[in-house]
Amino acid sequence: MTVATVKYLQTPTSNAWIEQAIAHLDTILLDHSHCERKAAGVALNLMCRYPSNTELVYQLTAIAREELEHFDRVNQILERRGIPLAPLPAPPYGAGLKAKVRRNEPERLLDSLLVSGLIEARSHERLGLLADRLDDRELAAFYRSLMASEARHYGAYWVLATTYFDRDAVTERLEELAAVESELLATLHPEPRIHS
Amino acid sequence: MTVATVKYLQTPTSNAWIEQAIAHLDTILLDHSHCERKAAGVALNLMCRYPSNTELVYQLTAIAREELEHFDRVNQILERRGIPLAPLPAPPYGAGLKAKVRRNEPERLLDSLLVSGLIEARSHERLGLLADRLDDRELAAFYRSLMASEARHYGAYWVLATTYFDRDAVTERLEELAAVESELLATLHPEPRIHS
Repeated sequence: MTVATVKYLQTPTSNAWIEQAIAHLDTILLDHSHCERKAAGVALNLMCRYPSNTELVYQLTAIAREELEHFDRVNQILERRGIPLAPLPAPPYGAGLKAKVRRNEPERLLDSLLVSGLIEARSHERLGLLADRLDDRELAAFYRSLMASEARHYGAYWVLATTYFDRDAVTERLEELAAVESELLATLHPEPRIHS
Repeated sequence: MTVATVKYLQTPTSNAWIEQAIAHLDTILLDHSHCERKAAGVALNLMCRYPSNTELVYQLTAIAREELEHFDRVNQILERRGIPLAPLPAPPYGAGLKAKVRRNEPERLLDSLLVSGLIEARSHERLGLLADRLDDRELAAFYRSLMASEARHYGAYWVLATTYFDRDAVTERLEELAAVESELLATLHPEPRIHS
């Protein structure tokens, strides 16, 4: 995978992140577990907030189910490696993006979908980098096996945005949020995380 | 199914509820959809609050995945019947039980598990009653197909409670909360709901 294949992202992940991640794989694995659970939670919260948006409910149910399946698979790897489940302080990335979600509807829905799509796109890019760069074959294969559904997820968020909003409005807002997303990752967070 | 088979519940569901439900099946189906999504959300929230409790995380992941599968299945039935997805004001039941969850740990964990178990037990009882009493064969078969996993869910919450707490303490608190649960349903809520 090359970063050029990941649409929506304005700046590719730095080598510094890859080096940090490979040097702290146990923490990255544990953080990945949290990311999958959080992604399922975000999808569920959106379904709860927009219960009449049928297409949104259908698509996000599928996403939440896949995230929980991935969560289960990461947790099995953690168990086999003797890495105990534990809380892990979140990096500033998620809160930084959430702060950009406008409070009023319908802007709130548009921003929520695009922010979730950007997070999925970045996860897709970074799990792909790990799949390419890890010497650990089990993990490399695991990350590779997640790529297709992670790509589907950010695609689904994009399609949902264009289901409920004008395409030009979506593209314009996506560019603004993608700039914020890249900016949030411009300085490597000192704690190793999927989104450090 | 007879009510005697549903452990934990102090008072069986009244005929008045069954009559109300059968007379408003479309609303009951829509409310059932909300119940499945909410149940998945409750399981996810508990996993998020107790990320180091491995057994809890494993069991609740399985529960959340099944609830989302049921959610999907109910939504397909709604679609086939032309019932649009829509918000539905909740009956006082859930908030009434939540109000009994003590705020401090470890009591909060114990109460959360038992309240979730009681809600699952009541759902199991009522979906079983619908399976027995409905003339609508498709729905009766659907409700019957959910029985086994609903029973597993309340069993899992009970087992988790006894994993983290002394059995006698669990039994004592369960009796108190089960009394509240039955009391909350003693007067039929005027709006037809799974937990009216």
